[in-house]
Amino acid sequence: MLIGQGFDAHRFAGPADRRPLWLACLEWDGNGIEGDSDGDVAAHALIDALLSAAHLGDIGTLFGVGASSAGAGRHGTDMLQETVEYLHAHGFAPSSASVALVGNRPKIGPRRTEAEAALSAAVGCQVSLTATTTDGMGFTGRGEGIAAIATALVEPRG
Amino acid sequence: MLIGQGFDAHRFAGPADRRPLWLACLEWDGNGIEGDSDGDVAAHALIDALLSAAHLGDIGTLFGVGASSAGAGRHGTDMLQETVEYLHAHGFAPSSASVALVGNRPKIGPRRTEAEAALSAAVGCQVSLTATTTDGMGFTGRGEGIAAIATALVEPRG
Amino acid sequence: MLIGQGFDAHRFAGPADRRPLWLACLEWDGNGIEGDSDGDVAAHALIDALLSAAHLGDIGTLFGVGASSAGAGRHGTDMLQETVEYLHAHGFAPSSASVALVGNRPKIGPRRTEAEAALSAAVGCQVSLTATTTDGMGFTGRGEGIAAIATALVEPRG
Repeated sequence: MLIGQGFDAHRFAGPADRRPLWLACLEWDGNGIEGDSDGDVAAHALIDALLSAAHLGDIGTLFGVGASSAGAGRHGTDMLQETVEYLHAHGFAPSSASVALVGNRPKIGPRRTEAEAALSAAVGCQVSLTATTTDGMGFTGRGEGIAAIATALVEPRG
Repeated sequence: MLIGQGFDAHRFAGPADRRPLWLACLEWDGNGIEGDSDGDVAAHALIDALLSAAHLGDIGTLFGVGASSAGAGRHGTDMLQETVEYLHAHGFAPSSASVALVGNRPKIGPRRTEAEAALSAAVGCQVSLTATTTDGMGFTGRGEGIAAIATALVEPRG
Repeated sequence: MLIGQGFDAHRFAGPADRRPLWLACLEWDGNGIEGDSDGDVAAHALIDALLSAAHLGDIGTLFGVGASSAGAGRHGTDMLQETVEYLHAHGFAPSSASVALVGNRPKIGPRRTEAEAALSAAVGCQVSLTATTTDGMGFTGRGEGIAAIATALVEPRG
């Protein structure tokens, strides 16, 4: 049993930037998140946790960094699926994962089941999602951005 | 073996607010932490980690949010015990957990053993507690509030 | 199987302070990190995760705090090795660990393999390292300091 830790944080786009809000593999109401890909910090932190557990680098290793990278313009679901295929190709399979979101919006509770189903389908094992705020403190509390902390267990494929 | 990640952060109450300081299931000297419940970020992050590992939502699912919620006015020990009963009722048992506190006060070291005993008794498995500061940086470093990152392993009950 | 969570954050030294930059058991180009030891937040967060998993306190328990502590002036590699010897002496062995770095510099990617090799050698099991930024937000985004979140699995020695 191997363990991985992941973290990601992105800035919310300004009101003039009409990009959609993608998070935890779903589209939500409200202004989007900046990033070369769709800015889905839940997916990105989870990708880092999965790659780290399998000792296969991090999201930058697999997808690059910047507007011309392999991750540019791509959705979290798509990137998660490619990550899991990469793990499979190296003899690993995720067995359990969890993401803790930290931010003021969107409100996760009403769509948690839907988000967990999307994440779990992309990863091929149970993925759980929690969400909390920071009582107005720090960059998440001021609404500047959103962060995610993820952990994952990965096993050699039998 | 299932894994969960939890996070919580709360603001320290101002000096005019004479609420006691509850953290890691103990009462400490010094000004308290804001929150509808007792503001025990260690207990709350741990509750999220436990619920997430068992794929049973988060602290808002079980206790609600706000001054009229089921968690209002309640202590971390009590909420942790209810969380573990909820896991048991769904066929899960915690097997190991750990909480990392981030903040300037209180000093955990002198009472770590006592705090770990209280957390472990509430959860029914070994729960460890570490503590660190952020060298004066960020909302924890400025003493505005305190944060906790938790992780837990949960197993199906045999 | 026991789990531990660790966190650490330190401030980057100012340009007048010519201390070397030690991180993840390697020396890097650029200004160093403040701290009584070498300021290696990756090693320190990992030490907390390992000690927490084994229920043996945290880095302050083992190395003390301050300029006259047992950790003063010591490198992360050395402190990690002593931590693992301490775990061994108490009947535990690390089985897997992962560290997520959060900061603007140094760029980890080009030397990730080297850093992971150094961390893994010090701990005696696979240790993975990921790195991300916070898009200019918070104390890590402003370049004031660097943070690390770590998790570890530890087993009783057979």
